[in-house]
Amino acid sequence: MFIRNAWYVAAWSSEISTRPFARTVLEEPVALFRRGSGTVAAVEDRCCHRGLPLSLGEVRGECIVCGYHGIAYDADGRCSSIPGQQHVSPRMRVRAFPTHEQDGLIWIWMGTPDAADRRTIPRYAYHEDRAEWPHRTCVQHLRCNYRLVIDNLLDLTHLAFVHKATIGGDPDAHARAQFSVAATERGVQFIRWLLNSLPPPTYVQAVNFTGRVDRWMEFEFVAPAVVYQFTGALAVGEGAYERGNRRGGFALRIFHGITPETEDTCHYFWSGAHGYRQSEPAVTDTLFAALSATFAEDAAILEAQHASLRARPAPLFNTVHDRARVIAERALDKLFAAE
Amino acid sequence: MFIRNAWYVAAWSSEISTRPFARTVLEEPVALFRRGSGTVAAVEDRCCHRGLPLSLGEVRGECIVCGYHGIAYDADGRCSSIPGQQHVSPRMRVRAFPTHEQDGLIWIWMGTPDAADRRTIPRYAYHEDRAEWPHRTCVQHLRCNYRLVIDNLLDLTHLAFVHKATIGGDPDAHARAQFSVAATERGVQFIRWLLNSLPPPTYVQAVNFTGRVDRWMEFEFVAPAVVYQFTGALAVGEGAYERGNRRGGFALRIFHGITPETEDTCHYFWSGAHGYRQSEPAVTDTLFAALSATFAEDAAILEAQHASLRARPAPLFNTVHDRARVIAERALDKLFAAE
Amino acid sequence: MFIRNAWYVAAWSSEISTRPFARTVLEEPVALFRRGSGTVAAVEDRCCHRGLPLSLGEVRGECIVCGYHGIAYDADGRCSSIPGQQHVSPRMRVRAFPTHEQDGLIWIWMGTPDAADRRTIPRYAYHEDRAEWPHRTCVQHLRCNYRLVIDNLLDLTHLAFVHKATIGGDPDAHARAQFSVAATERGVQFIRWLLNSLPPPTYVQAVNFTGRVDRWMEFEFVAPAVVYQFTGALAVGEGAYERGNRRGGFALRIFHGITPETEDTCHYFWSGAHGYRQSEPAVTDTLFAALSATFAEDAAILEAQHASLRARPAPLFNTVHDRARVIAERALDKLFAAE
Repeated sequence: MFIRNAWYVAAWSSEISTRPFARTVLEEPVALFRRGSGTVAAVEDRCCHRGLPLSLGEVRGECIVCGYHGIAYDADGRCSSIPGQQHVSPRMRVRAFPTHEQDGLIWIWMGTPDAADRRTIPRYAYHEDRAEWPHRTCVQHLRCNYRLVIDNLLDLTHLAFVHKATIGGDPDAHARAQFSVAATERGVQFIRWLLNSLPPPTYVQAVNFTGRVDRWMEFEFVAPAVVYQFTGALAVGEGAYERGNRRGGFALRIFHGITPETEDTCHYFWSGAHGYRQSEPAVTDTLFAALSATFAEDAAILEAQHASLRARPAPLFNTVHDRARVIAERALDKLFAAE
Repeated sequence: MFIRNAWYVAAWSSEISTRPFARTVLEEPVALFRRGSGTVAAVEDRCCHRGLPLSLGEVRGECIVCGYHGIAYDADGRCSSIPGQQHVSPRMRVRAFPTHEQDGLIWIWMGTPDAADRRTIPRYAYHEDRAEWPHRTCVQHLRCNYRLVIDNLLDLTHLAFVHKATIGGDPDAHARAQFSVAATERGVQFIRWLLNSLPPPTYVQAVNFTGRVDRWMEFEFVAPAVVYQFTGALAVGEGAYERGNRRGGFALRIFHGITPETEDTCHYFWSGAHGYRQSEPAVTDTLFAALSATFAEDAAILEAQHASLRARPAPLFNTVHDRARVIAERALDKLFAAE
Repeated sequence: MFIRNAWYVAAWSSEISTRPFARTVLEEPVALFRRGSGTVAAVEDRCCHRGLPLSLGEVRGECIVCGYHGIAYDADGRCSSIPGQQHVSPRMRVRAFPTHEQDGLIWIWMGTPDAADRRTIPRYAYHEDRAEWPHRTCVQHLRCNYRLVIDNLLDLTHLAFVHKATIGGDPDAHARAQFSVAATERGVQFIRWLLNSLPPPTYVQAVNFTGRVDRWMEFEFVAPAVVYQFTGALAVGEGAYERGNRRGGFALRIFHGITPETEDTCHYFWSGAHGYRQSEPAVTDTLFAALSATFAEDAAILEAQHASLRARPAPLFNTVHDRARVIAERALDKLFAAE
């Protein structure tokens, strides 16, 4: 039950070189490789001669060459040569998947190739703006359905429980948060404001707040599998809430790209960028370490949740905090129905 | 194929604290916890909001609180509060299981709650009499159906083969043993006598026998899943057999509670108590070490037997030593038919 | 989908002693043991009393004795004694499998016992001729269908790719090789000649070639599961090709016996014998190390190939190098159809 006609993150640009790379996306084994000309290609990870994964082979020029008997395929999946054989049947080919490299990410389209329109790939220019938004990137392999990761990001009341040891904070403050949510054309966005609140210790450490702050958490989900997060705080009086000011103070931008591997596993691509003290690599490192610890807490919950849901399907009940999640589900259902 | 309307050992009392505890019983994930008031409770280990196992949460007062979004449930499984939400639907609840703490054990009833009658819980007062019967307890996780553990205990001719390195002894002596077996209301009991025999080295070491002994092994199976074992020896002439004397000499009482986890796994709760040299903790330790080694030998056999039976079902044949086992099977079949 | 009426290698002779030995063949668990009289026997690895694998028991005289309750079976699978029981039902028996020890191998017949004809066992006298053909033996457990191992041996164009780090050599030389293939009564044989070619470094190291050589690779497949390999080289002019001379130079004989364990796993028995410097054990060791490294390269490919084929069945295409493989498949299909 996957949405196939959609762009998913297949890899970080930095993961793909001229050494073939194996990744399963939507239950399809894919061999990704960077051609000699630099462009990234993605083909079915299975030679059509004897079935060996092509990712065990090597790249030669623009082609990927099987590591068993040397059969070569071009980026379109056509068999281009067989050692010791003159004629190559045009029927010998493997499936090729449209890919596009943009914003430091390799995007892949697993559906009908003709429907692949690059203009619909979610943009994230912050990855290309390291001066203003220094960041580090990560890919986690999670043993849960990808939708659980999205669900997790769309109900922040989990912070006080899952992350009480790290970024959690006071459950009541979270419950009191001002919250507005709205459906968008491709998903949902919401913003939570903790106005006139004490900044968390990590914020104080980062930017030396000396008093109370207005704190926001702004999320946008773009179906099927991207979430943008913009979290920050400004000193009370600087107009973060009243005037939409975002300059100075504390500011994080987190990219979340979640790609189904199977119904029971997913690849979770994230980056964490900071909009303060941009010239200090140690700040980038500290942020990355903090996010890694936080997302490890989520991973433990998500995997236990998935195992539990898989073991015994039974009705679940929503709370008032599930509004964004319910809108996101509708967006996913709409995409799914369109296929 | 489980007998559900029955009491099973869910845990040792010592295992359950105010930190929630996960154990699967009859294929149902259960969260056990000790409420603030001290009573033990057991609920379905799955929050009805988003499915996280409740055992990953924490106990607050009389309630168990989900570790994902803080939803609380009381000991009856009713949702008692949702952070940031006024109204709680009475439909939001998880299943609760009747439990009872007795004789150092937590008993659980997985069937129809109304049918749970505490008076039918098998008693084992020796657990509460540490002065006369000092003991240590254990729970082993076995990869076999629970019935194989019971079968093992009901045919002691395995001692000479499985335990030849430990408590086995002479196969012929076991074959010569005087044996009487009788069905009981809830199962079967049998007694084996090795009259006028040489005591095993461990017996001599324990109580300094200087000559031959009359040795007994008395077992009672209470369906579906408890076996009481009373093993001992007295010097010949002290009337163990003739007059039913049990005072002095060597005496062990072993409790066996076997609880199905799945069709392929079980929890094996056992304790070993000694009725001699009761004031010497080292004796308790030595006994525990000996039993642990012996039951590890059984575990290896049981797991191999289970794997073999699972791999290829085929008819099996009984021997003359299967009498107690056959009566026990009938008792189990009767309980099963009653459901 | 196994061919059952056939002889398979069950074990190396050296593996079987009076300690029972477990091996699964064609999905049947088998207990192999050497009787007191020295003959090897094979019975179903499952006691018909309570199902324990008999391989966990022990050999007593001509019988195998179950490690649970001491029930004994003779080499024909008949229950010969039950401790403490006078009468033994003739229905108590386990299946016995015809076996034969020959050429250092234990052969087993998993089909209809009456059809087992020892004269059809593939011979390999080189195992008994250690003076002329010193060798070492190995058994590898592979996570692939046994037919993939045979396929691998019948298309040597993989050498230049899979074994480029070891014995591979120049892909073009392999493509230029003179190749003749012919169906045999029980399978297929082929010979590849690399005439007037530079000997690989390992050949030079072995027998001090100083110039070009004529090099051959001669393979014979005997369905369902044996491949004989005879690989060698003589200096150009010594008539290897023209006159069939095989004396001197470099010569290896490799035995391959591949026995299905399950549809997804197999036992790969191989030996490597050298026909040069026969009195130097270090040469035998060097050869064994080289073959082990080479077959480990194959194992990695075969297991990846099997996993890939299992994950997604889809049509495969042959190349010109698949001729021998296609003939072998026909031989297997014929045997299969005959059952």
